[in-house]
Amino acid sequence: MLELYHFGPVANSLTPLLCLLEKGLSFDNRLLNSRLWEHHSPEFQKLSPEGMVPILVHDGRVVRESTVINEYIDGVFAQVPLRPADLWLRAKMRVLTKFVDEYFCPALTTLGAHAATPFASRIDKQEMAQILSRMPNPEVRRKWETVSNSGYSEEQLADARRRLQVCVARMEKQLEHGGEWLLPGEYSLADIKWFSMMPGAPRLAPELCNEEVSPRTMAWLQRMKARPAVQALEEYRAPR
Amino acid sequence: MLELYHFGPVANSLTPLLCLLEKGLSFDNRLLNSRLWEHHSPEFQKLSPEGMVPILVHDGRVVRESTVINEYIDGVFAQVPLRPADLWLRAKMRVLTKFVDEYFCPALTTLGAHAATPFASRIDKQEMAQILSRMPNPEVRRKWETVSNSGYSEEQLADARRRLQVCVARMEKQLEHGGEWLLPGEYSLADIKWFSMMPGAPRLAPELCNEEVSPRTMAWLQRMKARPAVQALEEYRAPR
Repeated sequence: MLELYHFGPVANSLTPLLCLLEKGLSFDNRLLNSRLWEHHSPEFQKLSPEGMVPILVHDGRVVRESTVINEYIDGVFAQVPLRPADLWLRAKMRVLTKFVDEYFCPALTTLGAHAATPFASRIDKQEMAQILSRMPNPEVRRKWETVSNSGYSEEQLADARRRLQVCVARMEKQLEHGGEWLLPGEYSLADIKWFSMMPGAPRLAPELCNEEVSPRTMAWLQRMKARPAVQALEEYRAPR
Repeated sequence: MLELYHFGPVANSLTPLLCLLEKGLSFDNRLLNSRLWEHHSPEFQKLSPEGMVPILVHDGRVVRESTVINEYIDGVFAQVPLRPADLWLRAKMRVLTKFVDEYFCPALTTLGAHAATPFASRIDKQEMAQILSRMPNPEVRRKWETVSNSGYSEEQLADARRRLQVCVARMEKQLEHGGEWLLPGEYSLADIKWFSMMPGAPRLAPELCNEEVSPRTMAWLQRMKARPAVQALEEYRAPR
C-alpha cells in the first residue's frame, strides 16, 4: 500500500507524483494545504518530524526527499522503468537530478518564496510569530521569517536570477544532442526532476527563459506537457 | 580500468577514494595539486569541463560528482557491497548522503575556504585575476573571489557555524540507535560520505564538536579511523 503526502503538482511535490503516474501505480492521495500550514501540524509531524513534504508511506514505512523517493519507487516497482539499465547513463541521470536539488531548487525557491511575500505579509504579526515558532526545520523558518518581513533583498533576487540563468543554459546544453529527453535515448527520472522546477522559469523570469534564448527548453516543456501522465497531474491540484 | 582524479584524502575527494579502498579495487592514482590549480588546466578540463574534482574514469567513460561516483562503483563492482540490499534502508542511506551534499558540505566549505584566506591573499593580485578568469565554474570563481579579497564576513561565518552545529546534532541523533555505523545494522556509503566532512568539524569548530557535546560523533570518528581502508588513505596524500 502506497500513500503520498504532497502539496499538489508543483515543485518537489510534483516529483514523486509524476513518477507514480508515469508508472501507473495506484496510491492514496494525501493532499496537504500549505497555506493552512497543515504540514506543521503535530499529526503530520508524527510521519515527517521536520514537517517536510512530500513523503511516501509504503506499507507503513516512510520514505522522504523527493529524489530519494523516486529512486525508491523505481527500485521497488519494476513496471515502466524510469532509470537507465546502463549504470553509466544512470550516473548521468543522477548528476542531473542532483543539480536540481542543489542548485536549481534553491534559486527557484528564493524567487518563488519572494513571490509569496504579499500573502505572508498580510498575516497578522502575532499569528505569524506563532506559525514561525511551530516550524521544526530551521532553514524553512528562516525563509518564512524573511518572506513575512521584507522579502529578499534586490541583491539576493539578482543572484537567484543569475543562478536560474545558469540552469536554463545547462538545460539548453544538455539538449544539444537533439533527442527528445534529457538523456539521449530515454525518458527518465531526470526529466521528471527538471519538470518539477522548469515550468517556474518562464513564469518567474520570462526574460531568461523564452523561445528566443532557450528554444530547446521551451520545446522540451511542450513535449513534457503532452505526456498523458503530466496531463493527469491536474487531477491532483487542490480545488480553488 | 579505473582512474581516480582527486586532491587526496580530504572532503569530496576522500569519498570515492575511500570507497575504492573499502572494496579493494585497484585503480590508477591521479593526484592533482589544487594549490597549483592543476584542475583548471586545459588538459584536465578535457575530462572535467568545469574543472570539478574528483572524477572517475572507467574504461574511458567519465563519472563525476563524488556521491554519484560511489553509487556507480558499488553498482558495477559487486564485491564488498556498501549499499543496503533492502531498498528502504538504501533510501535512508541516500537521505544521509544527500544531506552532506546539500547542507554539510556548503557549511564546511565556507569555514574551510575562509581558512585558506591567508594563502589566497598572498597571491599577487594580477596573478589571482588570471587564475580567476580561468575558473570555468561560476560558483567556484565567486568563492575564490571572496577568499582572495576579504574572506567571508562575520555574519556569513556565524551562519556557517550555526549550520555546522545542525550537522553535528543530526549525527548525534542518527547514532542514537547505539550501533557502530550511521545505518543501524551495517557500514555503508553514508559513513563514507559523512567521514569526508566530519573530521573537519572538531578541527574548524572545536567548540561545536567535542567529547562533551557530541560524544557519539567522536566515538564514531575513532571507529572510522580504526578501519584499515581509512588508515590506507594516508598513502594517497600529496608529499609535503
